[in-house]
Amino acid sequence: MTAREVADLVGGRLEGDPTVVLTGIAGLRDAVAGRISYLEDPRYAPLLATTRASLVILGAEASVPADLRLNLLRVEKPGAAFMRVVETFAPPPPPRSAPGIHPCAVVDPAAKVHPTVSIQPFVVVEADVEIGEGTVIGAGGYLGHGARVGRECFFYPQVTVRERCLVGDRVILHPGVVIGSDGFGYEFVDGRYVKVPQVGIVQVDDDVEIGANSTVDRGRFGRTWIQRGVKVDNLVQIAHNVTVGEDTAIVAQAGISGSTQIGRCVRIAGQVGTVGHIAIGDGATLLAQSGVTRDVKKGETVFGYPAQEQREALRMHAALRRLPQMIERLRKVEKQMAERRPETKP
Amino acid sequence: MTAREVADLVGGRLEGDPTVVLTGIAGLRDAVAGRISYLEDPRYAPLLATTRASLVILGAEASVPADLRLNLLRVEKPGAAFMRVVETFAPPPPPRSAPGIHPCAVVDPAAKVHPTVSIQPFVVVEADVEIGEGTVIGAGGYLGHGARVGRECFFYPQVTVRERCLVGDRVILHPGVVIGSDGFGYEFVDGRYVKVPQVGIVQVDDDVEIGANSTVDRGRFGRTWIQRGVKVDNLVQIAHNVTVGEDTAIVAQAGISGSTQIGRCVRIAGQVGTVGHIAIGDGATLLAQSGVTRDVKKGETVFGYPAQEQREALRMHAALRRLPQMIERLRKVEKQMAERRPETKP
Amino acid sequence: MTAREVADLVGGRLEGDPTVVLTGIAGLRDAVAGRISYLEDPRYAPLLATTRASLVILGAEASVPADLRLNLLRVEKPGAAFMRVVETFAPPPPPRSAPGIHPCAVVDPAAKVHPTVSIQPFVVVEADVEIGEGTVIGAGGYLGHGARVGRECFFYPQVTVRERCLVGDRVILHPGVVIGSDGFGYEFVDGRYVKVPQVGIVQVDDDVEIGANSTVDRGRFGRTWIQRGVKVDNLVQIAHNVTVGEDTAIVAQAGISGSTQIGRCVRIAGQVGTVGHIAIGDGATLLAQSGVTRDVKKGETVFGYPAQEQREALRMHAALRRLPQMIERLRKVEKQMAERRPETKP
Repeated sequence: MTAREVADLVGGRLEGDPTVVLTGIAGLRDAVAGRISYLEDPRYAPLLATTRASLVILGAEASVPADLRLNLLRVEKPGAAFMRVVETFAPPPPPRSAPGIHPCAVVDPAAKVHPTVSIQPFVVVEADVEIGEGTVIGAGGYLGHGARVGRECFFYPQVTVRERCLVGDRVILHPGVVIGSDGFGYEFVDGRYVKVPQVGIVQVDDDVEIGANSTVDRGRFGRTWIQRGVKVDNLVQIAHNVTVGEDTAIVAQAGISGSTQIGRCVRIAGQVGTVGHIAIGDGATLLAQSGVTRDVKKGETVFGYPAQEQREALRMHAALRRLPQMIERLRKVEKQMAERRPETKP
Repeated sequence: MTAREVADLVGGRLEGDPTVVLTGIAGLRDAVAGRISYLEDPRYAPLLATTRASLVILGAEASVPADLRLNLLRVEKPGAAFMRVVETFAPPPPPRSAPGIHPCAVVDPAAKVHPTVSIQPFVVVEADVEIGEGTVIGAGGYLGHGARVGRECFFYPQVTVRERCLVGDRVILHPGVVIGSDGFGYEFVDGRYVKVPQVGIVQVDDDVEIGANSTVDRGRFGRTWIQRGVKVDNLVQIAHNVTVGEDTAIVAQAGISGSTQIGRCVRIAGQVGTVGHIAIGDGATLLAQSGVTRDVKKGETVFGYPAQEQREALRMHAALRRLPQMIERLRKVEKQMAERRPETKP
Repeated sequence: MTAREVADLVGGRLEGDPTVVLTGIAGLRDAVAGRISYLEDPRYAPLLATTRASLVILGAEASVPADLRLNLLRVEKPGAAFMRVVETFAPPPPPRSAPGIHPCAVVDPAAKVHPTVSIQPFVVVEADVEIGEGTVIGAGGYLGHGARVGRECFFYPQVTVRERCLVGDRVILHPGVVIGSDGFGYEFVDGRYVKVPQVGIVQVDDDVEIGANSTVDRGRFGRTWIQRGVKVDNLVQIAHNVTVGEDTAIVAQAGISGSTQIGRCVRIAGQVGTVGHIAIGDGATLLAQSGVTRDVKKGETVFGYPAQEQREALRMHAALRRLPQMIERLRKVEKQMAERRPETKP
């Protein structure tokens, strides 16, 4: 593909050699000759001086050094344009898993598996499981008794879905995900913990994606509920009886304690923790590493531990940075005060 | 089951229709007609107004709105009463795994497996492993050379117990648990890390439960020791040569660094981290997200980073919240001081 | 082995009974009669009074109580000397996995597996995978289409390496490690998340070790790159397009956000989080639980959230501890001010 052909594909204005041949994609830093790269975030502009990419897609108005000797393709939305290029150049995905049950899988005769389902090697499917059209269960997966999985789901290797849990359509579970493990519930009786039975389930609705090695505990009773369109990153913990509202995103290593209710379109950043039994309003944002100990209002942005409204938290942090200097100033005032004492009490 | 029959089962005073038919259990929020729910924590009292449960178990003295049209069962201990109801209504657990070695498991002939043990498909049991009466090893599990597992244990799918580690009786390991991985030990020699052999083991005593995808590293030498009755939540990291004392509970995503000694009945909240080589006294409490950098005394409660005694930490946090306002006050004092200067130095 | 023989092995000066027979190694706390232990860190010196070890290796100049009745071996470097003893006494490692493909593994005919490779039971190797001389793939592992793994690697059970990822020589992956899961990338379009294809790879260079249940996401395009000699502890998250420079160490439960560039010989302590798109300079240190929100300079040590240069952060923390007392002092100054007002404005 030539630079001219790329310009024909995504539109935009070409500056430089339209005949240069392009064979792949790469970030500005990694690119070698023949690669197409792009610049969207202006923080990366300095990389233009050093990149070896043969074509860089960038904003229509992005300023570049006068002496830059790079082939440029200027477009309105460099990110979107590059996405189209990625689709063209990306290596083909691995071949689609063939439908059918691999001879090295163990599927209970009382499971209802649609003929278009692909069950990879070393999968265990227990009795009364149902799996819908076109779903792929990756190698080494485990589906417990009575679990139900919808259509067009893709489970990567080593996924566990325990008994009676419900998974909707088009759900993606990455390697090592655990759905339906017991909630952490005990009664402390006579100095010992006695296990509280966790007889509920996890319900995962349509279009959810859950990252590698994340864990979602089943309800003590009732359900832990991950609603439509929720996106969960890697190594996230979701405790029993939590509800995560539609289109909410939870970044890596965050932890949601038991019975917390999370609204729609909430953004939970990395390593956030929440206590149990609180409510996070629709559209709220919990900034990274926050420890959230109280309800968060609709649309509110909080951070810190205990998490406060963002403006308040920022004010506090700014004040904190001036604290050592303040102590100095206070000392000075006290000294002046002391010096003047004799004069004021004559 | 009717409301009358529920009252006969758990005791208490019925208000409303004794003939209503009950078919299941649910939380107040999730309940539909026919469900029994309960109210213990008064924070949830507002849900009484909106729940569709057909019977709610609540405290003998709990106050409810005058116009409430719900069937109520008033008891001394609503949580305990509801637990008994849960046991009655809970769906039956999955059928008990049948004793015997599944034909799709690979068990070394030199392993000693009690005939009542259930080895599920795709399990690997290496030489010299011993497994006691009634234990279940879930699908895809791995027991390394010379590992010993006691009686009546239940390992969910995908559990790894590496060579020579010891697991007691009635231990529950949730999916993805790793016991006996190498400790993170290196010597930095000539600018490179050289691995320090981790030749110890992990010893897990009776009645321990460890949550999904948690990891416990083996001792550098000697052992990492999880004592009787310890309960560990999901995604917890326990490093080499740590001791966790009896009946201690560790909540999700906490991390315990190497050689730290944790006493009995300690409570470690979510996302806590401790440095290595410290001692946490019996009955101590480490509040959520604390970073513990020093010994913690018997019974002490700490929080923050670095973690401080709770009262001190609270005082500090309260002061912190007043900091922006203090800076204002200091500025005012300084100004007054300046204005008076001419008068005091005539 | 007698104490005399141990002294002959590691050198040093023996104090006590040279004929005592030694049968194993242990920490000071765990040791029983017959065990060799050692003391390096002076914080553990009090354990000398209570240990039951039959021989303790310690520093040439280490002071001990006058009435101590222990057999001592005094050496220049107690840690290194003890390491040699450990090698002598350590239980033999599990037998080396025999070369060859276990009959219960599923290896695509189009995979190139060196005849010295050991493929354990229940492993899946997809088409076009290449595995070099002497590598061991532990039970239940998964290697996706076109993945390449070098020589003398050791993968513990349940490791997943997804399609096209590259792993160098002598790489150790602990149980449950996931290499090449999708990065957490979405565009938020009309109120819903649309998945951004993650078509890049993970490249893991020689002599890397990655701890149990850690996850490394593939690049959005290009690569996530773990360079030579990097050591990663358990439950660590490394996001898409991150680069981790040579000989960097990352402790448990740390999380590195997307596109962050980490230099060489960086030390990242436990539970640290970094935002995306920042640069961490060579030799920098990120202290435990820090939240790093900006570039970190070469050799800089930072901590706190947001992370600051260590000295500055320490000053701030010290000031913070004095804050409650300062508020008192400020109040006093204000009071004095108020009392003097009449006198200064006569």
